Formats: sequence, C-alpha cells, structure tokens
Amino acid sequence: MSDAQELGITESKEHSTGEWYAEVVRKAELASYGPEGMSGFIVTRPRAYALWESVQDYLDARFKATGARNAYFPLFIPESYLEREKHIVEGFDPEVAWVTHGGREELDERLAVRPTSESIVAPYMAQWVRSHRDLPLRLNQWNSVVRWEATETKPFFRTKEFLWQEGHTAHASREDAWDETMTRLDQYEDLYEEHLAIPVLRGQKPEHDKFPGADTTTTVEALMPDGKSVQGATSHYLGTSFGEAFGIEYTDREEVERVAHTTSWGLSWRALGALVMTHSDDQGLVLPHTVAPEQVVVVPIWQEETKDDVLAYAEGIAEALEGAGVRVELDDRDERNPGFKFNEWELKGVPLRIEVGPNEQAEGSVTLVHRPDGESVEADRDGLVETVEDAFETTYAKLYAAAEENLSENVRDAFDRAELLGTLGRHGGYVRAPWCGDEACEAEVKEQLAAEVVMVPFEDDAEKHLDLDGADCAVCGDSAVETAFYAKSY
Amino acid sequence: MSDAQELGITESKEHSTGEWYAEVVRKAELASYGPEGMSGFIVTRPRAYALWESVQDYLDARFKATGARNAYFPLFIPESYLEREKHIVEGFDPEVAWVTHGGREELDERLAVRPTSESIVAPYMAQWVRSHRDLPLRLNQWNSVVRWEATETKPFFRTKEFLWQEGHTAHASREDAWDETMTRLDQYEDLYEEHLAIPVLRGQKPEHDKFPGADTTTTVEALMPDGKSVQGATSHYLGTSFGEAFGIEYTDREEVERVAHTTSWGLSWRALGALVMTHSDDQGLVLPHTVAPEQVVVVPIWQEETKDDVLAYAEGIAEALEGAGVRVELDDRDERNPGFKFNEWELKGVPLRIEVGPNEQAEGSVTLVHRPDGESVEADRDGLVETVEDAFETTYAKLYAAAEENLSENVRDAFDRAELLGTLGRHGGYVRAPWCGDEACEAEVKEQLAAEVVMVPFEDDAEKHLDLDGADCAVCGDSAVETAFYAKSY
Repeated sequence: MSDAQELGITESKEHSTGEWYAEVVRKAELASYGPEGMSGFIVTRPRAYALWESVQDYLDARFKATGARNAYFPLFIPESYLEREKHIVEGFDPEVAWVTHGGREELDERLAVRPTSESIVAPYMAQWVRSHRDLPLRLNQWNSVVRWEATETKPFFRTKEFLWQEGHTAHASREDAWDETMTRLDQYEDLYEEHLAIPVLRGQKPEHDKFPGADTTTTVEALMPDGKSVQGATSHYLGTSFGEAFGIEYTDREEVERVAHTTSWGLSWRALGALVMTHSDDQGLVLPHTVAPEQVVVVPIWQEETKDDVLAYAEGIAEALEGAGVRVELDDRDERNPGFKFNEWELKGVPLRIEVGPNEQAEGSVTLVHRPDGESVEADRDGLVETVEDAFETTYAKLYAAAEENLSENVRDAFDRAELLGTLGRHGGYVRAPWCGDEACEAEVKEQLAAEVVMVPFEDDAEKHLDLDGADCAVCGDSAVETAFYAKSY
Repeated sequence: MSDAQELGITESKEHSTGEWYAEVVRKAELASYGPEGMSGFIVTRPRAYALWESVQDYLDARFKATGARNAYFPLFIPESYLEREKHIVEGFDPEVAWVTHGGREELDERLAVRPTSESIVAPYMAQWVRSHRDLPLRLNQWNSVVRWEATETKPFFRTKEFLWQEGHTAHASREDAWDETMTRLDQYEDLYEEHLAIPVLRGQKPEHDKFPGADTTTTVEALMPDGKSVQGATSHYLGTSFGEAFGIEYTDREEVERVAHTTSWGLSWRALGALVMTHSDDQGLVLPHTVAPEQVVVVPIWQEETKDDVLAYAEGIAEALEGAGVRVELDDRDERNPGFKFNEWELKGVPLRIEVGPNEQAEGSVTLVHRPDGESVEADRDGLVETVEDAFETTYAKLYAAAEENLSENVRDAFDRAELLGTLGRHGGYVRAPWCGDEACEAEVKEQLAAEVVMVPFEDDAEKHLDLDGADCAVCGDSAVETAFYAKSY
C-alpha cells in the first residue's frame, strides 16, 4: 500500500460510521488494539493520551478549586468488601476481573481489580470522619478500572479497561451532598461545552438505571452525528446508603451522632470517543484548538531557488507563535511535498494550517486554512498572533455550531407508541415522550429498537419538559408522570 | 487519648527509625495501611498524593522537554508475553499477581497484572518502528505496578502495589540509547538534588544486580540518616536484547535492516519515602518548600480585645503571599490555641510559620519560624514576599546541607574483609572497597551483614574511584577490578 493510501480515510462517516471511526482512531495514531488474548483492551498512543491530559488539566484544576483533593486507593478490592455492597443493592453481581494468585501462591481471598472504588473508599472515609469538622471530605482519583463486559470493542467507547476519574465525597447534610452532585455535573457540562465543543443535555437517569445504591444518578448526554446518545459523565447523590453500610458517621455541633451523605462522580475516556466522533470527517480527525496537541502547523511551500527565503520566513512565523504560547509545528521536511503534508496534518486534526510561499513572503502575508471546513483566509504577517487567536475562536465556534445544530434538529416529540418507535427508527436522535415511569415501557422500546430512556430532565429545567397535564405514557397509555428522552446509545 | 498526645510523635528517629517512620506517615496523614487481607497495600492520602503530584510535575515537564510523550498500555500482560522475556533472561520467574477469571468465566490464558511493561511495550514498538525516521521513539507512562513480594510493608519503600513512571525508548544506535539512559539519570538526579533536597550518588549496578535483560543498569542512590541506602531511581540501557526478542527493527538510511537499541527508566513513590525519611524529625514531617502542599502557615495570636486587628493584619499577609503565588494557609481557627496550631503544622511539615500578634501588628512586622531547625526571625511587613522567598531558599539550603553532611561523613574506605565488615557494622553508610567483581564476594557480605554492592561508579567519575593499581578485592584477596560501594539498603 502506498503512503498516500495508507494516509487517507477510506470509509465514510455518513454511511459506515463504525468502520470510519475505527479507521480514524487507527490512522490518526490515537490507539491500537490490545494483544491477542486480550480483546477489549486498547493501547492509548501519545496523540490520544495528550487529549486525555488536556481533559485532566481542565477538570483537575476545577476539582481542586472546589475543594477536592487527589488520593490513590489500591487497585484491588477484597471480595468481602464488594460483598458489603450487596446489602445496598440486591442482586449486585459485579462483572470484574479476579486475581486469585500472587506469585506461586493461591490467595486466601480473591481480589477484584477495581470496577469502581466506592466499596474501598467508604471504609476509609468511615475511619477519617469523626466530627462535623471533618466534613465535607472530598477525594478524587485518576486511575483505570476494569469491567469484564463481553461486548464488541470500540476504542474509548467500550473497552474492558478504561481511564477515568472517580470522585468520592462525604457531607453533613442532604443539601450539601446535592450541591456537590450538581457542582460536579456543572463541571462536566463545562468540559464538554467550553473545552470539547460539544453541547450536552443534563438530566437524571430513570430509577431502574441509577448507579447501584444511589439515590439519584445525574448525567450529561451528548448526541453523536449518527443519532446515538453518549452518556458523557455521571454524578451520583448516594444518599446515606453507603454511609450506613460502611459506617461513615459524624458527631454534629449538638454532639448528636449522624450518618454522612455521600456522592460519587466520574468521567471516563469515553469523552475522547465523543470528541473524535462528533467533529471528525472523511479527511480524518478534527479537533478544537483547546485540546489539539498541535494547534497550528506551518507549511512552507518552496522551489529550489526560493527555499532559503521561504524557510526563514516560515521559521520566523513559527517562533513568533510559539513565543505567544501557541502549540505550533513547522513542517519543513524535505522528503514530503506540500500536498502530502496538508493531508497528513488534516488527518491528525490540526485546527489551523498556515501556508507560506514566495508570494506570502514577498507580501508579508500568510494563508490561513481552517481545518473544520477548509475555509482559506489571507492575512497580514503583522498582528498574526491575534489573527491566529481569533481563528481559534472562529474554528471552535464552527465546531460547536455544527454539533449544536445536530442536537437542536434531533429532539423530536412523540405521544403514542407508533410515533415513538417510528420517529426513533427513522431519525435516531432524542425522542421526547410522556412516560408513566415504568421500566416495562422502556423495555418494550428497548426490545424493538435497542433504544432506552437515556435521561429525564430535572424538575426545574422547565423548557425541557412536555406539558404532562392530562398526558398519557406514549407506550402503555397510563397516566404520564415524567418526560422521557428516548435514544439509542453508545 | 487526648488530641495533644494523638498529635505528637512518640517514637524517636534516632533510636527506633522504623517505628518513628511509620508514626510520621500515619500522623502526618500521608498513608493508611490497606484493607485486611491485603497486606502490602497502602492507601495514599491527599497530603502524600500532593507530594507525588509535585514529583510528577517536576519530571513530566522535563521528560516532555526532552522528547518523551506519555501513553497508556493495558494493566494486564498475557502470560505468553511475559514468557518471551524468558528468552532474554534465564530463570526469569516473575512474582506477579495473576488474573484467572473475568466475571464468571475462567480465562483461556492467565493475565499478569503488570510488574513493569517492557514485554507489552516492545511488541507495539515493533509495529510502530519501520524506518530510521521513526526513531527515536520515546514513550512514558505514569501508572501503578504490582510485585508480589512477601516482605514486610513499609509505606512508599516496600509495598506490593506502587506508583511510578516507566519510560521506554527505542533508538538507532548504541550511542543514542546510551545518551538517553544518561539524560534520564540526570533528570532523576536533578529531582533529588534540586527538588527534594537530597544529594545522591550516581553509578551503575553490578552485573548480577542489573535489570533482567539489560546491558547496563544505572542508579541514583540516596543515603538515609539511619545509614541505609535507597535506590532512588534506575535507568537501563537494554542494548538490543529486547529489540531482538520482540523484533524492533528499522531500515537505516542505506536501506539496511537493523535492530533498535532500547532503554527503560523508572522512578517510584519510593522517592517520597526517601523525602520523609531524610528530613523529618521527632516533631513530625519536614518538607522543602518546593514540594510542600502548604509552604507557609500564618498563625495569628490574639486576645479578645486585639482579635479583630490581629486577624485583619494576618489576613492581609496571607492575601499578599497568595497573590505572589505562595501556597499559604491562614489558621484562624477559634477552637484551637496557638501552641496547638504550632504543633499541628510542625507535624505536617510546613516549611515556614509566620506568627503575628498585637506587637507585630503595631510595629508592622512578623515573626518567621523555620520548620527545619526552629530558627525564629523578626522581619518587616514591607517586602515580606521577598523575605519569604529568601527564607524558602534558606530552609532548602539547611535541609540539603544536613543531608549532604550525612552523606559526606558516611563514605568510608576499607581494604580487607575485617575492615569492610567492621566499618559497615559499626557505622552503616557506604563503605568503598576494591572488588574483584565476583558475586560470591558480595554474597558473603550479604550473609554476614545484609549489606550489598549498591553501586559501582561510572568509569569517568574519577573522584569516586579508589586507586585500584595493584589493589586486591577486600573480600577474597584476588585482583580488584572495580570500586564497590557497599551498603545496607531499603
């Protein structure tokens, strides 16, 4: 296969989204599949890990500014600790990886590779919390977790091991814990909207789809271009169930012993999947400047006789941008022609390309090309830093607007079963329908279309609600009590 | 137990170093022991994790500035991948934790929880490296590894799971790979000397103590106050052994197929153990300002009638320092008296305390107290930011000087067996002795004193070498070929 073929994306985003996604992930050097015998695992290559670091930097600063501190709990959880969660959730049956041997010895008790850490964090919180002065206690950790689900691998969307952060907090009151739950949901929403250029819908999961043991599971949902919803992050108000099961108790100001209210909240590298899926196209990866490892690539275009001047001009531009804190790459490779370079950097998702040839050099200008839509703009060399910063804003706005348009055009209403199934089947996206709240009604939709209730709006989120006054559940016809957002989901 | 007793360190660093260390780790809220049934594991609390983040920030910036990029490889390694290392090292028998079940299913092939990642990184490097243009390839990952050693737990020094970073690189030539090995060793040395205030000795491990499969294992060693050496970090030049075993091959400029030279290099949270052990004292933790989560604590000292003025004065000071980028804590708790606060912040290792009472407020002055030695200095409120920055330098220099003195006073020479064993037994520290290079001679010393050859100086490190001209091995009397640094070690 020639370099050019190897470089190009051959699948179509519109017609074969799954294959296209896999190809972009591979050719943009984001990830490789795990070793033989380890299906479901991926190797995260530097270009994807840099995106994860950008997500980490964004969230970590905000977590710390709002009182959370990082910690590290062991990778393994004794089986007996997980069993204690059974007291909270009947039928809890974790699909985890089990360590049974250490070296040559069989262990007395099996150890689970953490699927999430509530059951090991809570007992320590119980040790550390004594008085109301110890609250709130806010911990976070960046780590990986393993969930042994035997589904088809989709890098960043579905993998047996994934990177994430998990926050765990304890509070004196329901109100404090609920505020915490919302603070984290707000931060996740901001990450998507301000950093990843993806609008999200916020709401809560239906009763039957909550985190095991949670009072309320809140979520931000992002709509992919293929009409499926991605659960972008979840923030759980756990009530006092973990506090009771693990003995997280404190003495209040009146010396009364009380049970702490806890929360947990997590965002995984699925955010990277949503990022790649939302913005990229048939030329490859598309990234907003906020996360792009290289924000600008400068491509000098020379003939033998103009080479020295053009290169010097290009170098000056790259240095000026770098000096202003722009992440810039100068592609001065001799062995590649400009067309090859354009394709390669488009594939890799660099938001802005600056082309400079003898004309630009003579005129003191540059040609700026926006990755998202190929728009080409002439600009003066003078004031280039501001021009580039403006172009960042413009390209970000283009990406956000396209995703916003996809979202706003794909929320439809349905009031009976035929309309619900028909609309979901034809268009995908979200279908908003009155719902009686019964899992059985969702189960019927799931069976027919593999769609589910991904979200129910918050009570105070008026514009997301249907008028339920006298409305009936679109599926069973009983009295409706909630507005359900149905969608297929990743 | 009263608060004051709970707060104070009761063990003596000099007389019972091990118990003292455990007490400092617990009472300064650095770590807790793992759950029952998981001996050898610890929970890293936020105050220790912040120290780890400081180490990460320091190294990560330097790694990236010198071409390394972060990646993430799976937590598990198939048994057959580990077996391939057997071709490199005879008798390789990893003491690893084995995952045998995923959910309810027994796995076809056991998976090792990574003890280190050479055997999973190398096969991917083999895929990614084709041409000399793909080299050097420099990857790093921050993760945790598990080594199922059944030794007594010592937080940060000896744990079954530990946090670390592992760098893996491939190069075209021996020279490039050796430069890489030295670059990383330099960076580790700088971390210890410029960031942790710990002088180190650099050198290489003897043949029999190299990393399995390595051509050369280099090390930085730090001397603890109890006379034991800590292996602070290692950087391995792996030669072509991994390249050959895993097929990391490239086409050079002349189109000739060649095997890549590889390196690996790692630093673990043992650096935190060395940090705590080196500087702390019978009042608790001592930290340099470079890593301290709080660099300055401001303690206002008031009577009822002076409270408002003193508090306002203290707040102004805290704000001014914070504005200058100093990590500052204002301890304005009502329910604690100044003496209690002094003890608590000393226990927690805050490098500088600023005391302000009515006198200071009236005079426009402050009292600065250095944590390392209790030195108390009056200073003007004007110019306080510079005064504090100077005090940081001074306290850092004090810590470094004390550690340097311990090191320089504890390198002794010995030329025969009785002198070697006697000196090591009496003083600990390093004993420098001529060595024939035979493992059997080291084994004898190990058996008698549990000491070993922790390091052999680099060839070009002239001042560390004994004059070996005509010298005999201190143990067996055969001709000496190397200068060995013997020590007990952690």
